[in-house]
Amino acid sequence: MTFATDIEIARAATKKPIQQIGEALGIPAEHLLPYGHDKAKVSQDFIDGLEGRENGKLILVTAINPTPAGEGKTTTTVGLGDGLNRIGKKAAICIREASLGPNFGMKGGAAGGGRAQVVPMEDMNLHFTGDFHAITSAHNLLSAMIDNHIYWGNELGIDERRVVWRRVMDMNDRALRDIVTSLGGVANGYPRQTGFDITVASEVMAILCLAADLDDLQRRLGDMIVAYRRDKSPVFARDIKADGAMTVLLKDAMQPNLVQTLENNPAFVHGGPFANIAHGCNSVIATKTALKLADYVVTEAGFGADLGAEKFMNIKCRKAGLAPDVVVLVATVRAMKMNGGVAKADLGAENVAAVEAGCPNLGRHIGNLKSFGVPVVVAINHFVTDTDAEVEAVRDFVAAQGAEAILCRHWEKGGEGIEALATRVAEIADSGVSQFAPLYPDDMPLLEKIETVAREVYHADAVVADKTVRDQLAAWEEAGYGSLPVCMAKTQYSFSTDPGQRGAPTGFDVPIREVRLSAGAGFVVAICGQIMTMPGLPRRPSAEAIRLNDAGDVEGLF
Amino acid sequence: MTFATDIEIARAATKKPIQQIGEALGIPAEHLLPYGHDKAKVSQDFIDGLEGRENGKLILVTAINPTPAGEGKTTTTVGLGDGLNRIGKKAAICIREASLGPNFGMKGGAAGGGRAQVVPMEDMNLHFTGDFHAITSAHNLLSAMIDNHIYWGNELGIDERRVVWRRVMDMNDRALRDIVTSLGGVANGYPRQTGFDITVASEVMAILCLAADLDDLQRRLGDMIVAYRRDKSPVFARDIKADGAMTVLLKDAMQPNLVQTLENNPAFVHGGPFANIAHGCNSVIATKTALKLADYVVTEAGFGADLGAEKFMNIKCRKAGLAPDVVVLVATVRAMKMNGGVAKADLGAENVAAVEAGCPNLGRHIGNLKSFGVPVVVAINHFVTDTDAEVEAVRDFVAAQGAEAILCRHWEKGGEGIEALATRVAEIADSGVSQFAPLYPDDMPLLEKIETVAREVYHADAVVADKTVRDQLAAWEEAGYGSLPVCMAKTQYSFSTDPGQRGAPTGFDVPIREVRLSAGAGFVVAICGQIMTMPGLPRRPSAEAIRLNDAGDVEGLF
Repeated sequence: MTFATDIEIARAATKKPIQQIGEALGIPAEHLLPYGHDKAKVSQDFIDGLEGRENGKLILVTAINPTPAGEGKTTTTVGLGDGLNRIGKKAAICIREASLGPNFGMKGGAAGGGRAQVVPMEDMNLHFTGDFHAITSAHNLLSAMIDNHIYWGNELGIDERRVVWRRVMDMNDRALRDIVTSLGGVANGYPRQTGFDITVASEVMAILCLAADLDDLQRRLGDMIVAYRRDKSPVFARDIKADGAMTVLLKDAMQPNLVQTLENNPAFVHGGPFANIAHGCNSVIATKTALKLADYVVTEAGFGADLGAEKFMNIKCRKAGLAPDVVVLVATVRAMKMNGGVAKADLGAENVAAVEAGCPNLGRHIGNLKSFGVPVVVAINHFVTDTDAEVEAVRDFVAAQGAEAILCRHWEKGGEGIEALATRVAEIADSGVSQFAPLYPDDMPLLEKIETVAREVYHADAVVADKTVRDQLAAWEEAGYGSLPVCMAKTQYSFSTDPGQRGAPTGFDVPIREVRLSAGAGFVVAICGQIMTMPGLPRRPSAEAIRLNDAGDVEGLF
Repeated sequence: MTFATDIEIARAATKKPIQQIGEALGIPAEHLLPYGHDKAKVSQDFIDGLEGRENGKLILVTAINPTPAGEGKTTTTVGLGDGLNRIGKKAAICIREASLGPNFGMKGGAAGGGRAQVVPMEDMNLHFTGDFHAITSAHNLLSAMIDNHIYWGNELGIDERRVVWRRVMDMNDRALRDIVTSLGGVANGYPRQTGFDITVASEVMAILCLAADLDDLQRRLGDMIVAYRRDKSPVFARDIKADGAMTVLLKDAMQPNLVQTLENNPAFVHGGPFANIAHGCNSVIATKTALKLADYVVTEAGFGADLGAEKFMNIKCRKAGLAPDVVVLVATVRAMKMNGGVAKADLGAENVAAVEAGCPNLGRHIGNLKSFGVPVVVAINHFVTDTDAEVEAVRDFVAAQGAEAILCRHWEKGGEGIEALATRVAEIADSGVSQFAPLYPDDMPLLEKIETVAREVYHADAVVADKTVRDQLAAWEEAGYGSLPVCMAKTQYSFSTDPGQRGAPTGFDVPIREVRLSAGAGFVVAICGQIMTMPGLPRRPSAEAIRLNDAGDVEGLF
């Protein structure tokens, strides 16, 4: 049995004009700002007019801790959207945009896979509608204005040693991680050490994804801390007078992008913050717009449920007033086997014992998600090598946890292969059983919030934080930031901070190396490990093989 | 008498859907890739299908040396296009795209002025269709791949001290002019000194504007020299294997952008290379496409005729096989007065003697342009303060040079105000009198080419170049680059290299400080002064006042 590759399937897709996709959602053509014939932004004016409409049901797709076997979270998100439409529901999906830079390092970047993909795939992995370029420009305008302010006399009294605002580029460029700028004499300014992060790590990205509208965007941009004075008082982007111009640069980027699935169902693809130092979800404005236009909105969160779903609940939903009606937890037989100790090369052989040994990872995520008051359904994303006995083992395990697991064949069959899950998810969403509540209240002290996540989600024994970290958290509480949620930057591969610890580890502590304040985005980042904010390219970057073929198609990107 | 501001006029414009603009040129809607409702790219497929069609007439608009009084070269280009359409001709204009960065330093960036503008003005001064972002990405991908190549073992034997490829950003950021990268230890690479230029200074920009098609683009990108080995042999972008991926990043940017004038006539706005270290013209592909679709194409070249028109003729036309049918030389009474020694503050008062004293600058440009074998018409771009006697003085001077000067009121009246010029220009273009030839043959030695331009265009006594420069030119001739044209990087404010020398100076030398090889773009740059390739922001950058107003319009950008 052979299967077409993702890119072959995507290229064979019969796309509808984007106006037809919009029309099915009730968006008039004049309110769709097209980018080519298959992409569009939904106008802010139209979105403003949606206020007061009923919201559809919100379905979150999350996953077990990622393994090299692949879980297919985005594939399941796309498939479930198609499945819901197939059973007669009006459904839309909401996912994140891809970062351009990493695509030139490693192949990848497909939006879904198999028969469950979003198109146009090439554009989505290149410049798309320019949102990330706009974020790069806005971020770097602020950087230039800070150095320019110092250059012309430093009226604000910025401590040149404590400029915390770096620059960004949507490129994997390790040479820019740590640099000295303003060499060459007085005309170029005062030399200082700084660096570049990749664009998705920009606080501007997180803000764009959390802002309710352009006014809120500008307010949050102004709230960003860019430097400190000698007396340790913060200097804000607003003090640099950059917030207005940054908002102008971001006005188009704030409008959500509409594309389509292979089955011509609507897909909002908007924003893409890191899921470690930021919250890892598509934009609030896309999710809210979709909820006004569709009866069911399927969205996803980054990494596994311990990071992505936790932040979706505790940051995005809390701040945006959203509440998921049901959560779909994606698992695969292969990933269970890897959690059960099988090496990637041996995944092809049936191994029910290994599946059973790996299931506790799944079980802990089920329990965690239930603690948010939301109903959970497990989607077993079927691989061709899965045996019936292995699938049964997962089903039995999940049933023993008081939940339900449904086998899905959307990768192979598209929406048709996921009708059972779609039907069940719609039933649960419609039932109104969800009693969503974030895990901790706003007024809990910051360190206790970190401890709550570590204890209740990671199942850690304790949080270890030295005096510097504790003092810093206390200082931020003093300064009025105590009501912010926390954003955990931890490895995605384990519940613990050790990426090698698969399954459901216990008996570990969570060390907090450092804390950072994202005052504009509105969260405190707790860093529990080495977090890389500017990737490098591998020895043989995929860029070396990327080219246009004679037909004008992109080769080597996927 | 009060006049509306440029932005007020632009906002009051009644734009047609871009599909209607395209339709008038014979471009079917499926071959227009829209960006919103008022911008579009013309598809490469459609352009490929135009081969074999007759070309329209090519009209170059150039100007005297720029003065702070303003000459209105773009305004005249736009007005002349409207004027030609108004007298029943099928005409299109071709101009350059604006760079985003400088708009956040000084106000400005309008595309034309008064009743002769291209819209949508805001978009054109912000992200437009993303071309410059694509160029930035392609340029910086190559930068990252070079450092990555060295990081992983430097198989190509690059001399780390002789990496000549820098990075770019479309931002005025002086702090990035001179930097040290790869600090922080072995994981970040080997520290070296480098810097950023502004995106319009990228050789990729020059290449995009000179490439015939995507194949030619990739070939030229591969030809770029990025570094040298210890034996001084060049390392090309092709050796780094970056040319294919860069072409993929530029595939959309290569398609020309279509917008419209206030009078709903077609305007191609595409590319924007520096007019000093590069050739300063819009893309060849835009000009050639326009020539297939319109009977008259009005285009412009950067700075004054000594730089812009010279490069248009000797670089763009030579390489693209284009030949202007007539040249319009823009002058104003005010600029003549400034050339005649009047300070800007005193320009309001009638001063016929000063006009006459300044006219030799105009006269020299007329003579120079004629030496290319092209007919010249002078457009006097009317200002409200001009007196009849002053205008007559210009007219008389031009007549004495064997040319004709026509008063134009397009700023005030749009196409209606420039009908006389349009009529005369069409007559001359149709007459076939142009006998265009570049100023020097391909096989002239490089130094002699520089001397030819200095002598025949600048009217300099001699070119001064030390042994290093002469040896370098000889080495490039040896290496096979001897047939390239030269690209002069000189002040735009004077025929000489002293920006204070207005009028028609004589008795000066042209010192060549440095020469650079743009092997992909295909020219040798001769640097005759301080050339800034990364601007800085002023003490009070316009960004501080840029914001969205309550109506959602951009304030402070213009």
